Amino acid sequence: MREAGRGGLFLVLEGVEGSGKTTQRALLTEWLERRGLPFTATREPGGTATGEAIRRILLDSPHVAERAELLLFLAARAAVIEEVVRPALAEGRIVVADRFDLSTLAYQGHGRGIDLGAVRSANRLATGGLAPDLTIVLDVPAETGLARTAARPGGRDRIEGEGQAFLSRVAEAYRLLASQEVGVICIDGTRTAALVHAEIVNELTARFPETFANSAG
Amino acid sequence: MREAGRGGLFLVLEGVEGSGKTTQRALLTEWLERRGLPFTATREPGGTATGEAIRRILLDSPHVAERAELLLFLAARAAVIEEVVRPALAEGRIVVADRFDLSTLAYQGHGRGIDLGAVRSANRLATGGLAPDLTIVLDVPAETGLARTAARPGGRDRIEGEGQAFLSRVAEAYRLLASQEVGVICIDGTRTAALVHAEIVNELTARFPETFANSAG
Repeated sequence: MREAGRGGLFLVLEGVEGSGKTTQRALLTEWLERRGLPFTATREPGGTATGEAIRRILLDSPHVAERAELLLFLAARAAVIEEVVRPALAEGRIVVADRFDLSTLAYQGHGRGIDLGAVRSANRLATGGLAPDLTIVLDVPAETGLARTAARPGGRDRIEGEGQAFLSRVAEAYRLLASQEVGVICIDGTRTAALVHAEIVNELTARFPETFANSAG
Repeated sequence: MREAGRGGLFLVLEGVEGSGKTTQRALLTEWLERRGLPFTATREPGGTATGEAIRRILLDSPHVAERAELLLFLAARAAVIEEVVRPALAEGRIVVADRFDLSTLAYQGHGRGIDLGAVRSANRLATGGLAPDLTIVLDVPAETGLARTAARPGGRDRIEGEGQAFLSRVAEAYRLLASQEVGVICIDGTRTAALVHAEIVNELTARFPETFANSAG
């Protein structure tokens, strides 16, 4: 939901590990740059000094208690919203975020089984009610995501190492959430990066003509 | 509220910086030790690997966004509950905690003005419903607390450096919460450490005779 009087456009890329979020964020910001549209790219957890410190705890610790993990993700989100997202939107910039509130519902809610009502209310506390203008889920089966991350240099971090059963629950949850939540679309992420990018650009120009009016092609 | 079937006793010391929590926790655990009662002492934030990493972010960062701060405190709490408090209570131990859920209501709710309903629901998410058997607020005016922390070697951390107006709101909030919340008592923390300790022991032996029956004197 759009907040009254705020400029800018808040776009979020979601999906399991290996779904192509990082690639698509890069292609999208490059596309915005070529069109002279001011943008800010963020990633979760991270993107602020507080968030990067949290990211290290989350990804490098051998064990993080389930509810502590949820609250750490939310703390990183609260920091990036206050320090990066809100100021950028206020300047009329396009924010392209790698993960936002849908990740919490998919991973900690559906994936880990934490009560969804509690997750939603904690999400609201973290976001202060700020919601994306559009969330794009890059839909890939868990096996595809795992095969892609297995090929990454440096191996997997703690969360990427969760295993296929967990990631299958998360991938399924993303599909379900895309069908239930307002402002969320799901696109097929198994195709080439160029094809996925073209679909994202089509969706954006169709949905936000005032922002992208002179940006086609 | 006591959870069915859980043993042990969960005691929490609360109060502003300089109210004497650390001293009283030490005197209390010494008293328990002399009586052969098994105990576990914790502090917030901290007490686990995750919590200590969070503690460093909270106390050493020059700036932490307000909602991020709240969620970090809650994440540290969730970690200490799952990793330390619940296992200790299950073994029938007495847990003596330096800060718990009342801190969040006093500091982030009343002190920083974050919506109290949201703070309570986030507290429940962090605690998973676990509540202390008794919370003891060490009541001192903000000026007394500040004068005591000013005398500490190493100076004040970020939160101790908040200033008198903020800490006065927090001290006032503790008094209010002690009058409203179930299982919270407020005792005069301006007296000598020995007198405060004696009152704490009196309260405990009167309230939990089954635990402290043979421990008087």
